[in-house]
Amino acid sequence: MMRNVSITFAERLSRWQADTEHALDRCLPASTSSPARLHEAMRYSVLGGGKRVRPALVYATAAALSLPQHTVMAAACAVEIIHAYSLIHDDLPAMDDDDLRRGRPTCHKAFDEATAVLAGDALQALAFELLTTDSDLPAKPAIRLELVRLLTQASGTAGMAGGQALDLAAEGQPADLATITDIHARKTGALIRVSVLLAAACQPDLSREDHDALDRYARCVGLAFQIQDDLLDIEGDPLLLGKATGADQALQKLTYPSVVGVEAAHRKVAELHQQTLAAIAHFGSQADSLRDLANWLVLRQH
Amino acid sequence: MMRNVSITFAERLSRWQADTEHALDRCLPASTSSPARLHEAMRYSVLGGGKRVRPALVYATAAALSLPQHTVMAAACAVEIIHAYSLIHDDLPAMDDDDLRRGRPTCHKAFDEATAVLAGDALQALAFELLTTDSDLPAKPAIRLELVRLLTQASGTAGMAGGQALDLAAEGQPADLATITDIHARKTGALIRVSVLLAAACQPDLSREDHDALDRYARCVGLAFQIQDDLLDIEGDPLLLGKATGADQALQKLTYPSVVGVEAAHRKVAELHQQTLAAIAHFGSQADSLRDLANWLVLRQH
Repeated sequence: MMRNVSITFAERLSRWQADTEHALDRCLPASTSSPARLHEAMRYSVLGGGKRVRPALVYATAAALSLPQHTVMAAACAVEIIHAYSLIHDDLPAMDDDDLRRGRPTCHKAFDEATAVLAGDALQALAFELLTTDSDLPAKPAIRLELVRLLTQASGTAGMAGGQALDLAAEGQPADLATITDIHARKTGALIRVSVLLAAACQPDLSREDHDALDRYARCVGLAFQIQDDLLDIEGDPLLLGKATGADQALQKLTYPSVVGVEAAHRKVAELHQQTLAAIAHFGSQADSLRDLANWLVLRQH
Repeated sequence: MMRNVSITFAERLSRWQADTEHALDRCLPASTSSPARLHEAMRYSVLGGGKRVRPALVYATAAALSLPQHTVMAAACAVEIIHAYSLIHDDLPAMDDDDLRRGRPTCHKAFDEATAVLAGDALQALAFELLTTDSDLPAKPAIRLELVRLLTQASGTAGMAGGQALDLAAEGQPADLATITDIHARKTGALIRVSVLLAAACQPDLSREDHDALDRYARCVGLAFQIQDDLLDIEGDPLLLGKATGADQALQKLTYPSVVGVEAAHRKVAELHQQTLAAIAHFGSQADSLRDLANWLVLRQH
């Protein structure tokens, strides 16, 4: 299932996914405490699956910067919780109106719409709260404050929420390369980029040069990831993907291939893939996980 | 319209409201920048009205602690923005399904449901972002981090969002004093309390004793405010209120008077009023604004 990826990386990814699941489980409120139904909805939507791409980017960046994994665990959880809340709200009838997510009923189907709205809202607050309360993150308040700043900006109107608004506005509109690049940079790119930046912010000795190199890596991998996602919706194998293809076209979603064509989109992914690897070339073997991750995200078939 | 409140306080309140409006206007994204429709929805829902109770509590606490108003302005805006986002989401068809708010169409009526969900989401991120970026707040990162922690905890499942979930779950259920007190403490109490605590956190020299006195004030005034709200929905003058009364009963909302009766609810308000004033007695004349505010919130007829 994973092409061009060594078994070692597959194992590492699998361990990261288990670590993430465990950490998320610990930081979510118990479903036995009040309000139980809200807590159940939060746990249902965050736990039990997902590729955990964003936490993996946090861990791989930490590894490249010689930071122990536990020092960035809460940052990884925070960005994954923001991602999870955005999926709950995106799936709502007023938004993409999806009944299934990862093969299970979406939050508003498993619970109800009001609970889904509130679960998303409470998860957003929890993500930022974690950055202030977790005891394993760097203790320095200036670092934690920077983590909050980075994640709020990636989540808000300049980032994910703004990208979702642009995406909805673009449905059925004429195609335009600048628009689709802006939508991708905000809607999915901002959270992918911030996953790298959060780990980078936990390393106070980082040079400006290395910071910018990691930022270039993150921007390129984020855009490549999303274009690959667009391509898989056109060319992917529904069996491997675990979902029907052609959804973007059916919803008249603006996608990268719909603007530049499928072949040019493939060329762009290959170009971004090279830029991704070039950006972190000077990090040496310590950045191997970042390389493996880029290869996986860009070459994945599901 | 304002009983038992000196003209001086009415003037101060009006100036605070204007200051808040101006500060909110500056920190909200421009409706000319992209995504314009989302920004318009955010501005529509935050600007142009409201009593600005929570910012007033921030300013009055700052005055009691000799803090210049500009040093707590961003905290006042942040809590008001959280309040505004919660109203947008509460008004959604899946929640309270309200078409009007302050005499104007609610956000999802003036725009659309998807935009209303996203405007709320982006406002929540903006509130926390402000606490990291505003240049007039105390510069010390530890103080700012504490502001973020306080506001996330007041907004999430332990606070406002959790209270809203409990409130929805309680509709049509048998009455219970512990439940209604818990709902009020979270749903409206948490943001009122945190308004006082945010200003208190900006004064690093505050003694534990004074902190706890302000916290007692805040808890009492928050509960009294909400019981008074419940009472006004039963006994208030629709003309003064600017909205129809009896809404809680129609929705089978659990309210304080519905549990203990109208007379006992009035007695509770009077008792809390006294406790509110007693809590800050030793602050002397510097706390006059906090006293005026408590008198206004508890004795208001609309």
